Amino acid sequence: MRRPIITLLSDFGLKDPYVAEMKAVILSICKEALIIDISHEIEKFNIRMGAFVLAQAAHYFPEGTIHVAVVDPGVGAARRAIIIETKRGLYVGPDNGLLMLAAENDGISHIYEIANPKYMLKRVSRTFHGRDIFSPAAAYLAAGVAPRMFGPEIHDPVKPSFSSPEIRDGMISGEIIHVDGFGNLITNISEKMLKSAEISEGDILYIRLGEKRLKVRLASSYEDVEINAPLAIVGGTGFLEISVNRGNASEILGARAGFPVEVKKTEGE
Amino acid sequence: MRRPIITLLSDFGLKDPYVAEMKAVILSICKEALIIDISHEIEKFNIRMGAFVLAQAAHYFPEGTIHVAVVDPGVGAARRAIIIETKRGLYVGPDNGLLMLAAENDGISHIYEIANPKYMLKRVSRTFHGRDIFSPAAAYLAAGVAPRMFGPEIHDPVKPSFSSPEIRDGMISGEIIHVDGFGNLITNISEKMLKSAEISEGDILYIRLGEKRLKVRLASSYEDVEINAPLAIVGGTGFLEISVNRGNASEILGARAGFPVEVKKTEGE
Amino acid sequence: MRRPIITLLSDFGLKDPYVAEMKAVILSICKEALIIDISHEIEKFNIRMGAFVLAQAAHYFPEGTIHVAVVDPGVGAARRAIIIETKRGLYVGPDNGLLMLAAENDGISHIYEIANPKYMLKRVSRTFHGRDIFSPAAAYLAAGVAPRMFGPEIHDPVKPSFSSPEIRDGMISGEIIHVDGFGNLITNISEKMLKSAEISEGDILYIRLGEKRLKVRLASSYEDVEINAPLAIVGGTGFLEISVNRGNASEILGARAGFPVEVKKTEGE
Repeated sequence: MRRPIITLLSDFGLKDPYVAEMKAVILSICKEALIIDISHEIEKFNIRMGAFVLAQAAHYFPEGTIHVAVVDPGVGAARRAIIIETKRGLYVGPDNGLLMLAAENDGISHIYEIANPKYMLKRVSRTFHGRDIFSPAAAYLAAGVAPRMFGPEIHDPVKPSFSSPEIRDGMISGEIIHVDGFGNLITNISEKMLKSAEISEGDILYIRLGEKRLKVRLASSYEDVEINAPLAIVGGTGFLEISVNRGNASEILGARAGFPVEVKKTEGE
Repeated sequence: MRRPIITLLSDFGLKDPYVAEMKAVILSICKEALIIDISHEIEKFNIRMGAFVLAQAAHYFPEGTIHVAVVDPGVGAARRAIIIETKRGLYVGPDNGLLMLAAENDGISHIYEIANPKYMLKRVSRTFHGRDIFSPAAAYLAAGVAPRMFGPEIHDPVKPSFSSPEIRDGMISGEIIHVDGFGNLITNISEKMLKSAEISEGDILYIRLGEKRLKVRLASSYEDVEINAPLAIVGGTGFLEISVNRGNASEILGARAGFPVEVKKTEGE
Repeated sequence: MRRPIITLLSDFGLKDPYVAEMKAVILSICKEALIIDISHEIEKFNIRMGAFVLAQAAHYFPEGTIHVAVVDPGVGAARRAIIIETKRGLYVGPDNGLLMLAAENDGISHIYEIANPKYMLKRVSRTFHGRDIFSPAAAYLAAGVAPRMFGPEIHDPVKPSFSSPEIRDGMISGEIIHVDGFGNLITNISEKMLKSAEISEGDILYIRLGEKRLKVRLASSYEDVEINAPLAIVGGTGFLEISVNRGNASEILGARAGFPVEVKKTEGE
């Protein structure tokens, strides 16, 4: 049984008919598609958050998966609609940086503009290209239409504005890139970067988080510390996370996405 | 592969086991059904909002789709359970107006009461006909049982209380029928009605919204105006919407569903 | 067509990539699985609420369904990962009581520890066994691997801490075990127990709810009472529920999960 997987990510929320309309359009064109929601609770217009959540989830999907992502404040204006073909799958959405983090993780092969009206709904609205352009594109891709059929190849996609963490004198400087529903503060500091700074589990870390300073253990489980105590841990994301055992680190530490983070191993303790 | 589509809409929310119980009942009767959620975040007991969201989404589903909708404050009392057969699909739910807007858009063929206990769960509860009556009915319909097998045809369905917009002296009077998750104020004024009033994109409109007066352009994209500025636009719904570029119009303009709206083109400007 | 059903329940919420990552892992191992969400809005770390919602929903799924549940504050520490084989299906999750209520309703056959790394993701994270251990286990079970292949049988599972209601002198003492999205106060007092106390529909009941006292009818529908008036009813859960017609009983009566409830039939009225 051939069953192409199409994932959906947006900032639409789940109250309105919008997500269902996208699914209806997809099933009208490719009735055997298996549609999986990644998230529709991306903060409105927050392209960076959408890019992070998409990149995290996309990594686990089978090869050949088609990802549709719509966080699209520039809908209906000059921004292009694109398909990115990667070594692992296909990404469909606005050319505003949203797709690039996930696509670069996969390895980008080609990027095409979606320009051919043959693969759009007959009536394209001013405000809902998720339904009228991106969903039909994904469904036609799932039905076997080649990416190059949708429009011209492009070489100047919009890049997302993610900063890279740095190490200097054993101090890692990064930032909080996402706060999850538990309040875990997910940094952009990878496990590999911790190794470069010779930090390993059990070490005591000095962490500067915005204005706050913490001294916490790099734990191997939340229960390494008391209930309501803070800790650092390499989370399921593969990044350093600052958490509170059975508590909400974001609320307790007053930290949000975008906060700068500095991490350093304590010496001689 | 035959794969009947069943959609679900309710005011149940996603916290409780209720939506999953409906899906479990459907899959126990018709295991090849493809179940798609339209929305479970309809405001509690808000039949008008449910009717609007259902009608919007149903339009995009393939012919033959079976829609189950449950916003049902009268459950267990005198209100009937019905199946509406239309030119495009089938609707299952309470006879309280919830299904009628979508069904009338499709063109109604027949309406049947669900009365035959053979097509209900063995134990029908007092409070959850979504699970005990509507879900089994949808699943038996998906499995090929004809609508007339469920009970007698009826001719007096409950109609929903939607008002129609009016034009007089070039002034369109309507109302806000839905506020979406972005805060967009969706009116019941269609693109066709704007044409009747000789209003087209680029025109400056005077809008009265409850107590507030606005002078805004009928835009062709949100980005036609500055960030945080209001605009009018024919949205993805096909209706006139009052929005704020990258902002929440409902919060900024203090408007909610039910607010009266008057729209008039400015002259000589 | 063989289409194994896998359900998911968690306290992850729907904002983050976590639920999609679980689905991606499942589909990578068993591409024909049909994945149904029970709820991802379980209150963070609330094992009792998760156990209740799982037990309610699981009852309606077809035989052979595989249920994955993750409310797992002890992830990465000493708690075991388990598979429970019952007369009706399979349960996969942490050994912290979460699965036991549903599994005991079905009738438990065997419990196995998940210990064989062959059936886990290659890299098991510290914090996300839902993705790295439970989802692969469910997918391998769906693909036909026998439960005993995952690890040793165990006989000392952690039991959940649910109290049982009691009858003395015609007074039933129980507690609120769940407050649903409508604000309905669901007790642990079953219809059968009401019968033991000779309580039937139409009877007037004295109810003590925390500090409050109510005198309400055991109704046969919400509409048996005025709008905004309280009532008692045997709900869709099969338990006695305290509700308010078209209102939120939890807010109006100031009651939450865990509140003690006493119910007694009035005499001579």
